[in-house]
Amino acid sequence: MTEPLEHFTHTDACSTVQLRGLLQLAQKVAADPGAYRGRLDGMLLINLFYEASTRTRVSFEVAAKRLGMHVVNVSAIGSSIEKGETLHDTFYTLQAMQPDFVVVRHPLEGTVEDLASRAERGTHLINAGDGTAAHPSQALLDAVTLQQHFGDLSKLIIVMAGDIRHSRVARSSLSLLRRLGVGEIRIAGPAEFLPGEPTIADARTFTDFDSAIENADVIMMLRIQKERISGLNIPAAADYHRDWGLTESRLALAAPHCRVLHPGPINREVEIASAVADGPQSLIRQQVRNGLHTRMALLLALAGHDADSRL
Amino acid sequence: MTEPLEHFTHTDACSTVQLRGLLQLAQKVAADPGAYRGRLDGMLLINLFYEASTRTRVSFEVAAKRLGMHVVNVSAIGSSIEKGETLHDTFYTLQAMQPDFVVVRHPLEGTVEDLASRAERGTHLINAGDGTAAHPSQALLDAVTLQQHFGDLSKLIIVMAGDIRHSRVARSSLSLLRRLGVGEIRIAGPAEFLPGEPTIADARTFTDFDSAIENADVIMMLRIQKERISGLNIPAAADYHRDWGLTESRLALAAPHCRVLHPGPINREVEIASAVADGPQSLIRQQVRNGLHTRMALLLALAGHDADSRL
Amino acid sequence: MTEPLEHFTHTDACSTVQLRGLLQLAQKVAADPGAYRGRLDGMLLINLFYEASTRTRVSFEVAAKRLGMHVVNVSAIGSSIEKGETLHDTFYTLQAMQPDFVVVRHPLEGTVEDLASRAERGTHLINAGDGTAAHPSQALLDAVTLQQHFGDLSKLIIVMAGDIRHSRVARSSLSLLRRLGVGEIRIAGPAEFLPGEPTIADARTFTDFDSAIENADVIMMLRIQKERISGLNIPAAADYHRDWGLTESRLALAAPHCRVLHPGPINREVEIASAVADGPQSLIRQQVRNGLHTRMALLLALAGHDADSRL
Repeated sequence: MTEPLEHFTHTDACSTVQLRGLLQLAQKVAADPGAYRGRLDGMLLINLFYEASTRTRVSFEVAAKRLGMHVVNVSAIGSSIEKGETLHDTFYTLQAMQPDFVVVRHPLEGTVEDLASRAERGTHLINAGDGTAAHPSQALLDAVTLQQHFGDLSKLIIVMAGDIRHSRVARSSLSLLRRLGVGEIRIAGPAEFLPGEPTIADARTFTDFDSAIENADVIMMLRIQKERISGLNIPAAADYHRDWGLTESRLALAAPHCRVLHPGPINREVEIASAVADGPQSLIRQQVRNGLHTRMALLLALAGHDADSRL
Repeated sequence: MTEPLEHFTHTDACSTVQLRGLLQLAQKVAADPGAYRGRLDGMLLINLFYEASTRTRVSFEVAAKRLGMHVVNVSAIGSSIEKGETLHDTFYTLQAMQPDFVVVRHPLEGTVEDLASRAERGTHLINAGDGTAAHPSQALLDAVTLQQHFGDLSKLIIVMAGDIRHSRVARSSLSLLRRLGVGEIRIAGPAEFLPGEPTIADARTFTDFDSAIENADVIMMLRIQKERISGLNIPAAADYHRDWGLTESRLALAAPHCRVLHPGPINREVEIASAVADGPQSLIRQQVRNGLHTRMALLLALAGHDADSRL
Repeated sequence: MTEPLEHFTHTDACSTVQLRGLLQLAQKVAADPGAYRGRLDGMLLINLFYEASTRTRVSFEVAAKRLGMHVVNVSAIGSSIEKGETLHDTFYTLQAMQPDFVVVRHPLEGTVEDLASRAERGTHLINAGDGTAAHPSQALLDAVTLQQHFGDLSKLIIVMAGDIRHSRVARSSLSLLRRLGVGEIRIAGPAEFLPGEPTIADARTFTDFDSAIENADVIMMLRIQKERISGLNIPAAADYHRDWGLTESRLALAAPHCRVLHPGPINREVEIASAVADGPQSLIRQQVRNGLHTRMALLLALAGHDADSRL
């Protein structure tokens, strides 16, 4: 039995046993989601989103409702946040509703850990993205998707390409993949999109996409975070696509069985060609579906269920 | 038993048997809505709205909840749509949640048919208004309202008046009424608001409202779609009201038992006088109530129920 | 048994027996909220909000969901309200959904009473704030909080301080506290924030905060309604804090057991110091929690339950 999770702020805050337990439970949910219907009947989840989101917000909302929970959405638009209330005060207001879960997306790094330290017992905080720091449920679903497809991850060569520096997905996923013991991690991107500090100690860094791709088993593309970048020397979309877009001809440089992931939303014909995104080597839609099941597993785990539970 | 509906994109895509089945089921639901409570327990409906709406969105949401379904609302505001995600990608993201229904409103014609062709089996698409093309659930509820009040429609003289050209309600309702075999259809409006092509073959066209109204059994008013028109030579509101507003004195030109419909929202003292909208010959509030029951029937029909089901 | 409530527009519209029944039921719910779970199963509540709100909207939504109800949110953003529909027409549209409750916040005074007079039997209107007139569920939860802490209210000296003139909370709470027979009510604020007419007949008025506080048992602070004031001669925030902010040193002038309330959202270091808001004499978080339970009680009471019901 794994020790129970209290909050889910980033994957580094989880023990390896907890992470493996989460991934195992996610696979079980993905295999038979209907078996978990109504399992958290009557619990309350609050989605507190300070940034735009479709897939993450909807994914948590559907996950919670499939489990029988009540869901309340609070966004920065049309709320007291417009009246200048501080984040802490908004949180205390929501805490007073005695929610079982508060799912938070916020532009500032560390926000969710900060709120978790203020939460009452029985209220579980989940990080749905904080600044450029972490998006840990995305990291989980990426790992679930790779495990589903490849089984053993220990021999895989995984390339993460694009805007690594500004991507919370990159940070969370690389950290988790490292801990899961993948064979090799390569980071590829234009110089200004590479991280300043070497977050992943033994990852190889490439500033040429074609070299990075060679023999790759997995290519994880990142979205150009247009809304987060300003003043940088960003190449025009067509230039970027030529040098850093994943096209069919470029994908042919990788291993024949190579699979492609992208956290979405996609900028078509910028970081990825439609022919690749919609092609046979793409796992993008599986990622979204696994996102639902992974988040169901996450909610179950925080509520005390584990992968060894009967059912 | 009617053949089952897969999607509901426009009434022309339904067989006459299907349409009559839908209308019959809607009358049954309207007669005893409580009997259907919880009938689609645990199913999931996603409202995907790219245009503002109160009555249609709320109507589908309440219909679904009365039937026991989970509802998730996605609007173009505060979602990934702001990040430039394409409609198709947003749809695939939502499709991955395995919804039973996706209700779509979009400014572009043909959007819902397009999405329906991409839907997985078991996900039913419903058109809640696409551009100026169709608003088929509105057409259904109009027909339900007329059947409730008049019973037989085959002798009725029906006038549709106002901005026919830009109205998806006009297009859907005229087409359905024609198929249901109403006695006579008249179209009335200022020249620039009449349709370019003659969509309804044998409808009589009037550019004088008073002549059009003579002996009418039903007058269906249309809203001036202010937000959809720009650059046209539109008369000022007071001028419009004088020539094309349905006033009490103008209504007196119709048959004494004449009834008035309007899809809402109403521009009071523009296309309709408050005395008429709120008066004894108005069926406007019944329309809204029937909207709820018609949409419950639509959801039931798409889920496989038909009017002959016991209950 | 109390006579049943039909609507809840302001506390003055309730008999004293009804108010005491509500407060008693709220205390019962607060003592054991789980006992009421699902008690209004399948009922429908519509939140119709024309002004931004987090705590009130969420509080009603959670209260309703804990009781097993369906909740539909309608805000002025992204709705037909943008198309210029009148309030009455929006209300009739929602009324046609046959909701059990419509909770309304609107910038215009008297709106909720107006709508209540148009509601069909079985639809209960609740005022969640109308202009500067009333916020009666806030008044209830304040009274519940004071009863919980002090028991008997008849000996209490209560100071209400700040922007009395523009505060619907002040109007509702003072009126209710007077009817509940509190010992003494003091009103304190800068001259331009005091009410023009003497709404509370025998309340003492102070334009010096320190004098007002002397021996006080309760200090109820009000938020500076920045968004409601324009053109007034308002002191800068720092000046306001010096003269009218509740600081620790100022609080020391009151009775040692004095407790502090604030309806939120708080302007920290403007009308209240963080040390006070978060300090041991603050009941602010209890207010929010009681808000949930008080609104559960209110919904139960309108649905016909009373404090003497078994359970």
